[in-house]
Formats: sequence, C-alpha cells, structure tokens
Amino acid sequence: MHATTTVITGTGCYIPANIKSNRDFTVHNFYGEDNKKIETDPQEIVEKFQQITGIESRRYVDGNMDSSDMAAIAAQLAIEDAKCDPETLDQIIVAHNFGNVIKHTIQTDVLPALASRVKHALKIKNPACVAYDILFGCPGWVQGVIQADAFFKSGMAKKCLVIGTETLSRVIDMYDRDSMIFSDGAGACVMEIKDAETTQAGILACSVQSHCLEEVDYLNMGKSNFPDSDPRIRYIKMKGRKVYEYAMKHVPLAMKDCLDKAGVNISELKKVFIHQANEKMDDAMVNAFYKLYGIDTPPLHIMPMSIHWLGNSSVATVPTLYDLVLKNKVEHHQLQRGDVIIFASVGAGMNINAVCYRY
Amino acid sequence: MHATTTVITGTGCYIPANIKSNRDFTVHNFYGEDNKKIETDPQEIVEKFQQITGIESRRYVDGNMDSSDMAAIAAQLAIEDAKCDPETLDQIIVAHNFGNVIKHTIQTDVLPALASRVKHALKIKNPACVAYDILFGCPGWVQGVIQADAFFKSGMAKKCLVIGTETLSRVIDMYDRDSMIFSDGAGACVMEIKDAETTQAGILACSVQSHCLEEVDYLNMGKSNFPDSDPRIRYIKMKGRKVYEYAMKHVPLAMKDCLDKAGVNISELKKVFIHQANEKMDDAMVNAFYKLYGIDTPPLHIMPMSIHWLGNSSVATVPTLYDLVLKNKVEHHQLQRGDVIIFASVGAGMNINAVCYRY
Repeated sequence: MHATTTVITGTGCYIPANIKSNRDFTVHNFYGEDNKKIETDPQEIVEKFQQITGIESRRYVDGNMDSSDMAAIAAQLAIEDAKCDPETLDQIIVAHNFGNVIKHTIQTDVLPALASRVKHALKIKNPACVAYDILFGCPGWVQGVIQADAFFKSGMAKKCLVIGTETLSRVIDMYDRDSMIFSDGAGACVMEIKDAETTQAGILACSVQSHCLEEVDYLNMGKSNFPDSDPRIRYIKMKGRKVYEYAMKHVPLAMKDCLDKAGVNISELKKVFIHQANEKMDDAMVNAFYKLYGIDTPPLHIMPMSIHWLGNSSVATVPTLYDLVLKNKVEHHQLQRGDVIIFASVGAGMNINAVCYRY
Repeated sequence: MHATTTVITGTGCYIPANIKSNRDFTVHNFYGEDNKKIETDPQEIVEKFQQITGIESRRYVDGNMDSSDMAAIAAQLAIEDAKCDPETLDQIIVAHNFGNVIKHTIQTDVLPALASRVKHALKIKNPACVAYDILFGCPGWVQGVIQADAFFKSGMAKKCLVIGTETLSRVIDMYDRDSMIFSDGAGACVMEIKDAETTQAGILACSVQSHCLEEVDYLNMGKSNFPDSDPRIRYIKMKGRKVYEYAMKHVPLAMKDCLDKAGVNISELKKVFIHQANEKMDDAMVNAFYKLYGIDTPPLHIMPMSIHWLGNSSVATVPTLYDLVLKNKVEHHQLQRGDVIIFASVGAGMNINAVCYRY
C-alpha cells in the first residue's frame, strides 16, 4: 500500500454583487446591549468601527438567492477548477450556521440539508455521493476539510466537495453596531486522496479545539438591541471583547501546535489564511503566533486579507480568500508549488481549528 | 498494529413526559395541501391514521426544554452506561434537523451548535473534545455512528458520543394530518475503538446513499395547510406517498448491500432496528428486505417497534429503540452477545443508511 496524501484539487467562490458600504450604516440608529440608544453620531460610530475592524464594505446576496444557491455556484466553480466529474464525488459536505434564511422571514430552513440542495443543483445522480451538513461555527469549512481528510484516511471516501456558505445579512440586528461586521458569501473546494509519490502537495497536520464552558455563549442568538423589539425574534449576537480575548489566548497556540505537528519550521511558512473576523484581531493573532517562535514581526505579506471589501462571511471567508489568492486576485499574494500554508479559524462554540497544508 | 473494531459501549435516551394521544387530535380541524378543509369527521381521520401508522400516542417535551436539553440527558445516561470519563471523549456528534426551537417561536437556533451546548451541559473541560452537529435528515444518528467509525479508522479519534435529538412538536402544522406522526425525543451512545482481539462486538459494514434529484423536496419546509396562514412561516411537510414509494424502492436494497458487505448470512440476523417512521412502511420494508433473500415471511420478533407509543421522533427513533431493547424494556426483544443486528434509516435529503453491527 502506497502512502497517500489529501490534496485540494480545485477551488471556487461566490461573491454577492450587492455592495453595502459603511456609509450606508450612517443613517442607522444604534442601540447598546442595555437597549439604550447610543448617542454618539452614527458617522463617528462607523468611522471607529472601520478603524478597528478594517471593514469598508461587505456583500449582501440578492433577495431571490439563498445560502444553498451561493454554495452551488461556488461548488460548480471548484468542480470545474478541479476538472472533476461531479458524479465521482463520494461526499458533499456543507458547513454553515444558519441554513437557508429566506428573505423577509426569520426562519432557518435546513430541511433538507443544504448539501442535499447543492447535490440537487449540481444534478448529481450517483446515490453513493453522500451529502450532509456540519455545524461548527465560523471554523466549519476548515472542519469540513479535516472531515474529508478523516474519511480519506479511513478508506471510506476518495473525493469530497467541501463548501462553506452563509447569509449573515439575514440574521443581523440592524440596531446593533456588530451588524456592520457580517456579510454573505460562499467558498468551496474539491479534495482528493492522491498517491504521495505523485505529488508533494497535501495536508501535513491538523489541530482542533472546542471550548464550551463559559465560552458557549460568546456568539449566540439573542433579541434585538431595540427596546420595543419582539423578544421571540432573535439575531446573531457577539460578545466582541470576550471573543477577542478568547481568540488571542487560544488561536496562536493552536496554530503553533499544528505547525509543530507538521514538523515544519516557522521560517518555511509562506502564508496564513486566517478567518476574516476583524483586521485588528487577525493582525494581533498572527503577531502572537510569531511571538511564540521568538519572532517580533511576522514576514511581510504573510497574511492575505479580504475583510476590507468582503466583511466577515463566517464559514465562507477562508475558502473565498484561498480561491482569490490562487486566482491571482489578491495583490502581493501568490503561491508557488511546495509552499507551506496554514488555514486557521475561530468562532461560535467556541471552536478553533488549523490545518497545515503544502500547496 | 492490531486489528481494531468500533464498539457501542453505552446507550441512553430521553423520553419526554407529556403524552399526546390520538384522541387529542380529534378536536383539530384538518386541511389538505390544497388549503381546503377536510370534511371527514376528525374522529374518522384519526382512526384511519392509527391503522396506517400504528401510532397511538407520541411524546412532546416540556415548554421549558429544548432539543439540546434532551440531548444532554440522553448523553449523560449513555456516558454512565459506558462507565466512561466524559473528559476522555474525542468528539461529541449531535444529529438533528431543526436545532433548538424555543417554544412559541418558530426560529431554529443552532448558534452555537447543539453539540457545543451538550458539551457545556456535561461540563466537559477538555478542549480536545471536538463538538459539532451533522444534518442528514432522519438518518442523522446512524450517520453519526458511521462518522465516528470513519474517525476511528483514520486514527483521528478513539471515543465519540453520538446523539440524535429533535423537537418536532415545535415545527408541525397543526392543520396538517401529518402533524400526528411527529414527536420529540433524544437517543445517544458512546462509541469506542477496541482491539479486535478483546471483543467480538463491533461494526461489520455500512451503506449510505443520498438521492437528491426529484427526491430533494419529499420532506421540506412549507406553509401551513390553513388557507389564511402567513406564508412566511413554514412547517415540516412530507409527501407521504412519495416517501413511501422511495423507501420501498431503495431501503431494502441498501440493507441487503450492508449485510452482504458484512459477509453475514440472512439467517444469522437477529434484529432490525429501523427508523420508526410508520408501522405499515416499516413492516413493508422489512418484508421486502427478506424477499430479496427469497424469504416470504421475516422471522418472528425480528423488528422491535416503539412507534405505537413514541411516534416518529426523527433522528431519535433508532438510538432510543436500541437503548430500550438493551435495557429490557421492549417485550419479546432481547439481545445476546454475538448477535448480529442492523440499524437502518431513511429520511429528508432523501438519505438512506444502514449499519450492520455485532452486539
């Protein structure tokens, strides 16, 4: 039996066309968690928001499209990129956290699972192509990659489609300043098991952690900040300070654990594809990661970013960013065959994961 | 390296206390898919329903409990049954299709994932215990078992908690006759990888299929049958005739595929734990399965049933039934060490799976 390796053979993404700029939020009335109106000028709130998060605009999907529609488009592009016959896929794994939320409703719809809908949209007949969803907070897509790797190693699958898709525009509380963070999008990849003698590419190591004690509600569903809102209608809510402290404490260590398990020297690491949560937080996490190796300043252009123009689209940020870099759409960021990279994410659960990968 | 085997080392379930009898439905007004009132006397409708489905009553969870609460109770019982230190669990896998639906709301809440909430309720500290949800229709719990087996075979996990939990009482359309089918519940098991020299127990083979062409909407979310209902509020909807025909066509073959892969002779099969969907359908599937082996009448007591008193609780039916049999709570149904059994399920997606297991 030859040694095998788990390779990403194609990528794709869907970037919604509707640009929602920060300026669009200057007409909003923002309320605090205490349901009191924030008296600061919205213009000032928005400027401060941009300084911290780096977000200038974000994308919202058209009203007639849902999360599974975006997923199917990203998937189709990844399949074409991989030059893969979709009928040969063993699994379709869709990561998300809200399912389809039809516009002007507040209901999550995951019956059937989004993966079933993607398989339907791709017109895949093969009954042996197993379609299911996983829920793991923002790190769901990276977890899907780990999931596919596990099925390859078990001998139970050889080719998987892994998608992250989310329509956060449908679950935000417009009275909450955090509504400015979130956006819509989908990213996908085809993964295949290959003979390690035929390619140097592949997953080198993974790390995964779940912290669910006091951390369990750092991201959750809660009522609107608007005082007269219906308490039964709930929106995505984030304890931003807690999330920041949590991420700083755990993510750099998890990334180091992953790199060390891979036996890769930090000097060999070429790119960090980290969940696009917040520019300041992402910078701080990568700085802290390098500090663990005694390096004060991370190498220039180590971290491609898309948050400025795409916002935080949850499970979609990492695969979208990876696809953009591979398609030469991010300035100063290219990959050469053999480059070692890390995918890393953090989000609701709280969950963290990292995958060390040789391109 | 020794050969290994994937063993279920403990089980548990949560059966909600509130009994909703068929009689309770005789005061309902039923409407058809065409939004027209069904003029048949509700008493007659309910009697006919009972003849077809075998359901006499079903269980609804208390208003102050959610799907993740039931999951945590079932999980705790499975952990105690397995005499397992919860801190040694590598994964918590929760299968469901609607998340938590807080009473008097219609929103699915899966942020954080139910697995995170279960880990929280169990007070598990170990960050290496990875908690995530899978969505795969009613076969979700059986799929979780297959999932754990894959992670064991990959070398990436050694001990998993697999839970199925659902509160269908919160997503039914009371104007739809199908509302009488659905119920609430949770079932769980602890799974461990063992040295095959130390036990004869373990998974022998699995089969999984997804059919997502025309089958994709056989179970889905749709508006109430009541003509003046808000079309934005949607409920679980089933194309009963289509589901029946689909199940009859594919499930017996998938069960046979699984048994044949396991290399087990049909005469050795001791029990079939099939998704409690509908008594007539379950009988017909098992009859058709035996017919594939040229056997006209399945052995007496081959199929334990709980649908009469528990209804169809989706992902919870199979683990609940298995737990009830192991705890000697189902008349005429006991298992002896070494007995070969099949778990099988069918549901939204449409998805089918089967696991052949030696107790």
